[in-house]
Amino acid sequence: MMASSTPSSIEHTMLAASEQLQVPSNITKFKIGLCQLSVTSEKNQNLACARNSIKAAVECGARLVVLPEMWNCPYSNDYFAKFAEDFENEDASPTFSMLSEAACSHGITIVGGSVPESSDGQLYNTSCVFGPDGKLKAKHRKIHLFDIEIPGDITFKESDFFAAGDKPTIVDTDVGRIGIGICHDIRFPELAALYRAKGARIICYPGAFNISTGELLWEVMQRARAADNQLFVATCSPSRDSSGSYAIWGHSTLVGPSGEIIATSGHEETVVVAEIDYSKIELQRKGLPLDKQKRADIYLS
Amino acid sequence: MMASSTPSSIEHTMLAASEQLQVPSNITKFKIGLCQLSVTSEKNQNLACARNSIKAAVECGARLVVLPEMWNCPYSNDYFAKFAEDFENEDASPTFSMLSEAACSHGITIVGGSVPESSDGQLYNTSCVFGPDGKLKAKHRKIHLFDIEIPGDITFKESDFFAAGDKPTIVDTDVGRIGIGICHDIRFPELAALYRAKGARIICYPGAFNISTGELLWEVMQRARAADNQLFVATCSPSRDSSGSYAIWGHSTLVGPSGEIIATSGHEETVVVAEIDYSKIELQRKGLPLDKQKRADIYLS
Repeated sequence: MMASSTPSSIEHTMLAASEQLQVPSNITKFKIGLCQLSVTSEKNQNLACARNSIKAAVECGARLVVLPEMWNCPYSNDYFAKFAEDFENEDASPTFSMLSEAACSHGITIVGGSVPESSDGQLYNTSCVFGPDGKLKAKHRKIHLFDIEIPGDITFKESDFFAAGDKPTIVDTDVGRIGIGICHDIRFPELAALYRAKGARIICYPGAFNISTGELLWEVMQRARAADNQLFVATCSPSRDSSGSYAIWGHSTLVGPSGEIIATSGHEETVVVAEIDYSKIELQRKGLPLDKQKRADIYLS
Repeated sequence: MMASSTPSSIEHTMLAASEQLQVPSNITKFKIGLCQLSVTSEKNQNLACARNSIKAAVECGARLVVLPEMWNCPYSNDYFAKFAEDFENEDASPTFSMLSEAACSHGITIVGGSVPESSDGQLYNTSCVFGPDGKLKAKHRKIHLFDIEIPGDITFKESDFFAAGDKPTIVDTDVGRIGIGICHDIRFPELAALYRAKGARIICYPGAFNISTGELLWEVMQRARAADNQLFVATCSPSRDSSGSYAIWGHSTLVGPSGEIIATSGHEETVVVAEIDYSKIELQRKGLPLDKQKRADIYLS
């Protein structure tokens, strides 16, 4: 297990530390819970709703719980700065406190979706990971901000509101090594391949794809990342009735290491609980050793 | 346009040459034909069937025609050596002659699926590309052979029969720059990314996915390669009633640069003809500049 640390030092040491760490050998099967939350413009209500949803997931047996992208705040620039919290100041961060308490009291690992973080005068779209002792284990700032302008379809410029993270995040937890990406991070196969190379067995992508991109690519992206890297991919979205300036796709999903959908949802508020069985990874990688079949000598041509 | 050359020199110069070449500027829209052929154990019948299907595609307006993986020969080790041809000896190769004649007489580009090639005592799973002048423009030998052993599902070891190619293949044609992969080559995102980096606007993957892998991943793989690289992906499979030792998925498909299915088929013998509009590539890449959004500094961590 990785020692807990302050957020700022975690960011800088995460990869070097994780490379030396091992997945706990006794974990082969466990349940994951994906809390597809309805997000309102009342932060306290969002916190209470998330807390209840985590409890519901735990009551269904989840040892790892994932929350959606931007679950404590509507996805709108009208709210980001007002709702943002500084995680360096834990006591003044109700979101930090709730997640820490929930992880500790249930003895679970939480990938805390994402929320707006304020730090050094910047806003980030940030995911915090807590261990069963309630301590912060990792913090991922969304690396790839969603800037798109397709006339007649969708226009959005996330970089107008947020600064981008500049580090991948891989973290050893009680339930194995996990890579973290947020939403548009899933569009970059290189990040998933890096996590695979570093030994991740799950990649968690909290995400809030819109209806247009969601219908087209949400499932394809997560299944391709899972199949290409022969690992589990877990996504968690807000529900469609959330506040915010665009309609959200939903469909929080667990995908297995051959690219198969293990469990998914519609667009309504719900909790998806499903089993992760690491032996499926070994079976796939042994039976179809994509990693050994790669021809790195050719790709660099 | 690339000068024609002998097959052996083409293999060695393809990438270097193609990098200096330009897509013809006057091509923005054209039709592609995907000939989903029923393959029998009679080579002459397969050649005649393919020839008719090419003609049918042309009659529907196709300027680029793609054939399936292993279309002149059942997908079985009982036939590979017997059906193999040596493309260095064009006059003794009925497959070479038919494809050359068809390309020339119709004035089209043909990505000739794949067939067993014998060369220097080895067998290769090889795709030949012909230009409207009937000359061989490129030859791709399947790089990633399909070796899989998933108990209770599928066991297959292509490397027992074939030697692997060791070069990517990108070729400038009358209808733009095309990257070639064969079947299992599609499982490797690095190859598609290489073709994208080299300026391909289409990747053609003749393939013969089996029912098991086909249902799970055929569509996901081609849509992910297209969406990740913002280019067209064209796949062409034999039909399910083909001879051979395993049941074939079919579903030859054209996917556009946002990962959308433009046209597809069932598993029966058919010809899919659909329009490729290169302006869709520019629209996607301008509106969602994935290439500029990449963080190469991070992926190498």
